[in-house]
Amino acid sequence: MKALYWDGLNLTLKTSHPSPKLDSALALVRVRLAGICSTDLQIFKGYMGFRGVPGHEFVGEAVEGPAPFIGKRVAGEINFACGRCEFCRRGLGRHCAKRRVMGILDADGCFAESVAVPARNLHLVPDGVSDEEAVFTEPLAAAFEILEQVEIDFTREVLVFGDGKLGLLCAQVVALTGARVTLVGKHPDKLRLAKAAGVRTVLLADWKPQSADIVVEATGSSSGLETALAAVRPRGTLVLKSTCAEEHRLSLAPVVINEITVVGSRCGLFPPALDALAQKKVSVTPMIEKIYPLSQGVDAVTHAGKPGARKVLLWTEN
Amino acid sequence: MKALYWDGLNLTLKTSHPSPKLDSALALVRVRLAGICSTDLQIFKGYMGFRGVPGHEFVGEAVEGPAPFIGKRVAGEINFACGRCEFCRRGLGRHCAKRRVMGILDADGCFAESVAVPARNLHLVPDGVSDEEAVFTEPLAAAFEILEQVEIDFTREVLVFGDGKLGLLCAQVVALTGARVTLVGKHPDKLRLAKAAGVRTVLLADWKPQSADIVVEATGSSSGLETALAAVRPRGTLVLKSTCAEEHRLSLAPVVINEITVVGSRCGLFPPALDALAQKKVSVTPMIEKIYPLSQGVDAVTHAGKPGARKVLLWTEN
Repeated sequence: MKALYWDGLNLTLKTSHPSPKLDSALALVRVRLAGICSTDLQIFKGYMGFRGVPGHEFVGEAVEGPAPFIGKRVAGEINFACGRCEFCRRGLGRHCAKRRVMGILDADGCFAESVAVPARNLHLVPDGVSDEEAVFTEPLAAAFEILEQVEIDFTREVLVFGDGKLGLLCAQVVALTGARVTLVGKHPDKLRLAKAAGVRTVLLADWKPQSADIVVEATGSSSGLETALAAVRPRGTLVLKSTCAEEHRLSLAPVVINEITVVGSRCGLFPPALDALAQKKVSVTPMIEKIYPLSQGVDAVTHAGKPGARKVLLWTEN
Repeated sequence: MKALYWDGLNLTLKTSHPSPKLDSALALVRVRLAGICSTDLQIFKGYMGFRGVPGHEFVGEAVEGPAPFIGKRVAGEINFACGRCEFCRRGLGRHCAKRRVMGILDADGCFAESVAVPARNLHLVPDGVSDEEAVFTEPLAAAFEILEQVEIDFTREVLVFGDGKLGLLCAQVVALTGARVTLVGKHPDKLRLAKAAGVRTVLLADWKPQSADIVVEATGSSSGLETALAAVRPRGTLVLKSTCAEEHRLSLAPVVINEITVVGSRCGLFPPALDALAQKKVSVTPMIEKIYPLSQGVDAVTHAGKPGARKVLLWTEN
């Protein structure tokens, strides 16, 4: 099959990559659309030391596996957990110590014609959700993870820093709680997307430093982290959404003095994300910048890495 | 009056320092014992840019102020809050933006014969609590702050890193919840103190890395912070107790990947601390290394700054 392959130094298109091997727990999914994410770009800088087929955001059609999925459109959670350990038993398979992670850790990903996914990771995509929407399920679930971890309601003032893809999703998701959400970013065109989705926005250059109960850091940069930390009110919460390979250098004294709670937040559960898409509670398709065929995947990754690029998708000519 | 004075460069003994000025909200306390704390030592390195009489841990006798306190032994909370702002109204005067802090920020401290303290900050010291115990009220309250912020019960595995004064107090306080607490430190003599108080202890050199639900960082060093962070299990909590002026350089990626919650923790309320002392639930006096008269306060500070020093107290010859 066609697949992109990362060998640790180069990303190349393989035209006759072996199809995924299946076992009784795995389903085979024919990929329809896949999304290129900042984590993928980090991987191509060495993050996680990954080798193999990258990619972890997809919507596809199940072609082998349990009957209820066959011929149906599916999205798939990316942490392949053991299912038996303490974390798995607590419903936290995404923290299973033995987990493999699609396109990130010991498991081939979805920048390919087909991908193998544990059947228990699959979720049916509701009929009213288009492929272009469903391919956002994984990053949208990551945004919903904030609501799993931090209690937010309409009494809260929330600042989201970073108008990249994740920031745009986080701002919309947090706004669903009724909280007063302001997205602070550097890109007028991206802030316009958030504004169209009903979120208050402000350009970082125009932003008058204020403090908020809850601050979401989604800039992925050290300077953004410092700005975000400074904007948390005493006893407030800073949610860290960016996985950065680089070391952040910062003084943690404000965390102690202001008794701030810093919450690391990563992958989320798919049902709330699919539900929000089905109910049209969040707007994702305006974030799409371009759709490339898989055969032009290397160019697509280059495009996705350009500063300010919105979501770049890969279309699989299955 | 006699007082130690920090002018930003030198700490000196003043023999005729002006007595504190009082107003209707302030009580005058004749200091009996004062404790030298790591924060004081940080101040003498430039922390907070403080100038004036340092010191914030004390037990004394109220000699002017509201009748119920006069002639009685008192301890005093160190944050002098406005009493009117949103934080004050929520009982969080220790986060009042207008606060002054005894011996740390815009308010003279207790390394003196007398100190002025807002009457509402005072707490009577129960009869069964000695001066040598009561002088630990402030740092003990800081240890109890952990229990205000993080839910801990007997089902939890807790690691406390750092066998300094604060670490010894934190380990004892967390153990009151019934949690399985292990104190990891570098000093056999200090670990013995914790062991005598009923806490499991292990030398850092002998410690086999394990992960715990809750990790308390009380080492005050960057390397300690890194060790502590690595010991938090996924979805666990890291409590930061050290206020360090220095910048910590560390990768926050583990915080995000393991969805760790980092809780900054500072000053606490005095009642639980006084209560624990009255009930002999914690053991503090074995931590005393030496008691100096105030007139030898400069030597006392030098002593307190020696690596491995336990608690050094100042005795005021009132």
